[in-house]
Amino acid sequence: MIGEIISIGDELTSGRILNSTSYFAASHLFGAGHEISAMFTIGDEPEMIGSSIKDSIDRADFVVVTGGLGSTSDDLTNEAVAQALDRPTTLYPEIFDKIKRSRRFASMPSLEKLAWLPSGAEILKPEERMAGYLLIYNDKPIFFLPGVPNQMRELMIDRVIPRLATWKGGKTSLVRQKVYKVFGLSEMEINQRLKAIENSHSQVSIGYYPLSTEVHVSLTVRGESHAETERLFQQIEMVIEETMGDSLYGEDNACLEGIVGQILHARKLTIGVAESCSGGLMAHRITTIPGSSNYFLGGVVAYSNDLKERLLSVNRKTLLEYGAVSRQTAREMALGVCVATGSDIGISVTGIAGPTGGTEEKPVGTVCFGLAAGGESFGFLFHFCGKRAMIQTRAAMTGLDLVRRYLLKLELPSD
Amino acid sequence: MIGEIISIGDELTSGRILNSTSYFAASHLFGAGHEISAMFTIGDEPEMIGSSIKDSIDRADFVVVTGGLGSTSDDLTNEAVAQALDRPTTLYPEIFDKIKRSRRFASMPSLEKLAWLPSGAEILKPEERMAGYLLIYNDKPIFFLPGVPNQMRELMIDRVIPRLATWKGGKTSLVRQKVYKVFGLSEMEINQRLKAIENSHSQVSIGYYPLSTEVHVSLTVRGESHAETERLFQQIEMVIEETMGDSLYGEDNACLEGIVGQILHARKLTIGVAESCSGGLMAHRITTIPGSSNYFLGGVVAYSNDLKERLLSVNRKTLLEYGAVSRQTAREMALGVCVATGSDIGISVTGIAGPTGGTEEKPVGTVCFGLAAGGESFGFLFHFCGKRAMIQTRAAMTGLDLVRRYLLKLELPSD
Repeated sequence: MIGEIISIGDELTSGRILNSTSYFAASHLFGAGHEISAMFTIGDEPEMIGSSIKDSIDRADFVVVTGGLGSTSDDLTNEAVAQALDRPTTLYPEIFDKIKRSRRFASMPSLEKLAWLPSGAEILKPEERMAGYLLIYNDKPIFFLPGVPNQMRELMIDRVIPRLATWKGGKTSLVRQKVYKVFGLSEMEINQRLKAIENSHSQVSIGYYPLSTEVHVSLTVRGESHAETERLFQQIEMVIEETMGDSLYGEDNACLEGIVGQILHARKLTIGVAESCSGGLMAHRITTIPGSSNYFLGGVVAYSNDLKERLLSVNRKTLLEYGAVSRQTAREMALGVCVATGSDIGISVTGIAGPTGGTEEKPVGTVCFGLAAGGESFGFLFHFCGKRAMIQTRAAMTGLDLVRRYLLKLELPSD
Repeated sequence: MIGEIISIGDELTSGRILNSTSYFAASHLFGAGHEISAMFTIGDEPEMIGSSIKDSIDRADFVVVTGGLGSTSDDLTNEAVAQALDRPTTLYPEIFDKIKRSRRFASMPSLEKLAWLPSGAEILKPEERMAGYLLIYNDKPIFFLPGVPNQMRELMIDRVIPRLATWKGGKTSLVRQKVYKVFGLSEMEINQRLKAIENSHSQVSIGYYPLSTEVHVSLTVRGESHAETERLFQQIEMVIEETMGDSLYGEDNACLEGIVGQILHARKLTIGVAESCSGGLMAHRITTIPGSSNYFLGGVVAYSNDLKERLLSVNRKTLLEYGAVSRQTAREMALGVCVATGSDIGISVTGIAGPTGGTEEKPVGTVCFGLAAGGESFGFLFHFCGKRAMIQTRAAMTGLDLVRRYLLKLELPSD
């Protein structure tokens, strides 16, 4: 189906807030096999809101509208719709009852506004206190979603995508969707490997979303029956899992630092990190996970050679002979951080993030890693491209991926 | 002036790329005193491109169009404009000469396309190899900018904003703009303090952009002459500087970690960091600055109490008596990291980032800092709100701001 997206709010047209909801909606609709022909962002101006919605639904098969559903004076979507689509607002008693029972109602009688919706509106999540409804106009669906990003995302995934999947003239087609998270393969490599599946199945859409150092791949399968959808989904999923191999680290809401944390926690193992060029980013990513204190003891950021010796017991001879950016130094850093923190596993990173400091032999982007655990230690050498910030991010995340690979006994790069 | 923004590209409507250029354009136009009534994002579809541009320039005082100016087959803006606005494309020989001289032309004859522009197009930066032109239609300006973010931004700031400032019927009004970067005051506080100036000067616009833990305030002054603009600008700037006081840490492209680095570098001082709840983020922010190895020696992430003792020499008695999250522990951490790294200055942070670990006495968001330098040491206590990631960010940035305040002999919070 061909759709249009309309975002409403002065905070968007004044550039105070980056419109990430349209992006989210577009990427998920596209991933589900729809085409977005246009996206509009307009201010809190009822005439413009009304005419935009009317024009869009005249052109497109469906429209998604976000924002302007709240209870303040600049929330004007419902009135604009009532006017433009000739659907006078009516009181929805089930919503009003909930509002009346809420504590905030006594001090904010304007909340009543939330219970007045264009006639014919079908509440998307009546069980929750969340704005958002569907209006059918000329047999086409218009979804009205709150501008609050997390509510909008929830309704998009739980209601809009499934509803559109079963829309076409009442055909009971069903949809199944999953996001696969991949580290260590490029978008192009993945696309080349998966192109064939997508071309040979009209019910299958695959979307590719490169995100910093990772690629997220979304699979959407649409079938006529639950059984058919499920069978096709499992068949394609098997191909995807096989194709991505051990570069596939998780699904849907998983993140690399979370996966590594889960494994460490489950095995009652602790980790310490020794960082040079990533400057603390690897430790920081580990500690973004609530409860990481269960397995993360601490780390050392040893930017200077002197500190690599003093805090991580790297041999001066190793530094002189192989340099600070070498597999040998990285290994000693990993061993050293195990001793310094008393952790079961040590991971280290030392490299040249640039823009200066590169040499012919070790150009900017040269990054070495060390991993120490259970009496063993390994050293790895990578070459990353990009600017300083990208090299630092790649260094931190590659370190985490090496730990994941070690813990799951997957293939490691050659030592 | 009232403007509209149109972004062109299938990569935007398919949700493959987040449209940050529209946001950038809107915030800068708004900051310069214009109003954006609508923003459109459309795919690479010439009819839609043409009719959108035509409709927008009929409604608005000016239009900014981004994207679709390149040399590949999906770059269709120029053809669409030629058709919709009746401005047939003509060959611009000065551009074609440059293209012919480029090395890539031999293998890519399609580059010639870049030299064919709608008749009447005025190249925005003829001295550089960069797409982007101005077309005047019914006496109104339409700016066509490349979709490449950094080129678009450069043209926006260097050409579009100044050009619009002097537009109105040939009046030679002049514009001066600056961004002030503030740490430690909320958007509302700043707004309340500055509202009066904005209301009393029609030539002055002030924009407020809260960005994670900071607020960026943009000042735009428009006058009839260079002298008048300059005089008014300096007058308002003085008020702003006085109002923000020492919370104003920098201007335009400055960042807090860069400012701290500059001072340390200029004074030939070194710094070491000891982190608990910020988990390495403070060290990481310091090392995002190229050349930070000149003043940053390293740091310790001591997540566990044991490591606070072992790596930072915090007294067990202090930990038992006052707890890990206390001014006392923070001070000892700061002193300890000076010893461990041999740095002139030590900054430490220890707190409760949540979601668990809070108590009645020390709720989630309680964060203590220690600062040690030149034989002195200080301890500070803050309460931050927000979720885990926000508390970690506030902790790291507040630590850096304390270092800035100490180095510049500004007021510090009470010990």
